[in-house]
Amino acid sequence: MTIRVAVPDSAMLDRLSESIPAGVELLVWRPGNAPVDGWIDLLVMPYTVSYDSLRELGGQVRHIQSQSLGYDGAGDFVPAGVSFSNAVGVHEAPTAEMAMTLVLSAQRGWPAIGRNQDSQKWDRPTWPGLIGQRVLLIGVGGIGREFELRISGFDVSLTRVARTARDDIHGIDELPDLLPKADIVVLAIPLNDETRGLVDSAFLDLLPHGALVVNVSRGPIVDTDALVEHVRSGAVRAALDVVDPEPLPVGHPLWSLPGSLISPHLGGAVQSMNTRVDPLVLEQIELLLRGERPRHIVFN
Amino acid sequence: MTIRVAVPDSAMLDRLSESIPAGVELLVWRPGNAPVDGWIDLLVMPYTVSYDSLRELGGQVRHIQSQSLGYDGAGDFVPAGVSFSNAVGVHEAPTAEMAMTLVLSAQRGWPAIGRNQDSQKWDRPTWPGLIGQRVLLIGVGGIGREFELRISGFDVSLTRVARTARDDIHGIDELPDLLPKADIVVLAIPLNDETRGLVDSAFLDLLPHGALVVNVSRGPIVDTDALVEHVRSGAVRAALDVVDPEPLPVGHPLWSLPGSLISPHLGGAVQSMNTRVDPLVLEQIELLLRGERPRHIVFN
Repeated sequence: MTIRVAVPDSAMLDRLSESIPAGVELLVWRPGNAPVDGWIDLLVMPYTVSYDSLRELGGQVRHIQSQSLGYDGAGDFVPAGVSFSNAVGVHEAPTAEMAMTLVLSAQRGWPAIGRNQDSQKWDRPTWPGLIGQRVLLIGVGGIGREFELRISGFDVSLTRVARTARDDIHGIDELPDLLPKADIVVLAIPLNDETRGLVDSAFLDLLPHGALVVNVSRGPIVDTDALVEHVRSGAVRAALDVVDPEPLPVGHPLWSLPGSLISPHLGGAVQSMNTRVDPLVLEQIELLLRGERPRHIVFN
Repeated sequence: MTIRVAVPDSAMLDRLSESIPAGVELLVWRPGNAPVDGWIDLLVMPYTVSYDSLRELGGQVRHIQSQSLGYDGAGDFVPAGVSFSNAVGVHEAPTAEMAMTLVLSAQRGWPAIGRNQDSQKWDRPTWPGLIGQRVLLIGVGGIGREFELRISGFDVSLTRVARTARDDIHGIDELPDLLPKADIVVLAIPLNDETRGLVDSAFLDLLPHGALVVNVSRGPIVDTDALVEHVRSGAVRAALDVVDPEPLPVGHPLWSLPGSLISPHLGGAVQSMNTRVDPLVLEQIELLLRGERPRHIVFN
């Protein structure tokens, strides 16, 4: 049996060629290229393109492997009869790493310290720090678990929240009791109809004055207008790798408000990403060669 | 028995008054104030004053408790017959926390991301990240141990170096073999005659291209001119909480060179500091009341 695999760039083709099993034809295709003649068994999407570009695929493809973890919005664009996998195992660790970077930076004085560097000002106010802080982690999936691993050495008190309570994990219905006791809230949940707008005015009003809201999941988990209003008044601080809308437009208050720290959706984007993507793609190829279903299918 | 304890400000006096045992007279004194009449059994120094100010004490004091961990330079100013303790247990954890903040910030794109925030630019290059990096920790004392705790969840390969080799800790004489295999070097050693200028041109030349040098101990561990030259050429990057000289003067290249991240000696300076200083001072008071020697004496 021979299968055809389309990858989005020649760099990935070169890397995979070194370890590809017999019976696989590798070719490069990405949205914008001319349609491929014939059937594609596995299409690896580029890391960051809109799902809209899937419209160009027609019905030639059997399975799509995304390079992203989140797949909100993908369902509308995956053609009928085509299965679709998200990139489980690729981005959870670097996204949790970004969450820790945002938590530490905000608690230790950035972006003010960065601004002082640029104005060459040796200014030494005392910042909150992380030791002893009460951290509320909302989401205990892949990113949440990697975040827990990373924050475990930092001498905080960690409370975990999931959709439904279990063991020592609280249910999301307990938030009204938990938010008033949280110095730092970390959002690590997928975007869906239940979580859209979870962080609204009522949520933010329950936090202690000056609490930090960290978002590394998806921008629309947060009601941006409500957040802006609460950051502007000093009620909360925000450290955001994801925002709504993206890209954050020039002139948006989240760029410049004191108490707002912004990174441009870099959660999973680190130079080691290929060392996790390539094995995932090779695993999917092996499964297809054996006539089995690919892993991590979220639409079919 | 009654003892007299001088603390540097009324805030500390108020905090200690709540839990002070009988037989202790608390008063406020700090350099610049008029000399205190009579004998002081314990003088708690302000957190950041020069040791030079100890000259004003004369011979009235029995024991000095510093609020700093480092005590390089103190020996020249502690009066004869006066014992002196450093603040063991107060700053190690927040200083290690700052080291992690600097490591993560530099690996995830700061200060560039901060500058993009200020120019409202949604720019998404790929940064190195921390996962999989080879970290060389020089120093396994209090700060080193707290750093180890914190980095343990981040999926790095950690190599430890101390003055003398033991167990799975390398000796400092092995640096020529270790430096070429280090992506990140973290300096967490005290400043003394052996460590002054440890990071010189020869040290930096041995690092892989683009390696990150993180200093949270004391500025003069690093030869500043050599570091500037290596950062300027792009050979290494630097993330520094301590520099030589301090404060870093306006116009110094470390403020503005690409690849340089500066924080103004904030290692131990977090808002939770009092929760560690106060118990240390109370412990010393209890020892003095019992006629025992204070802990952590480094000069006598």
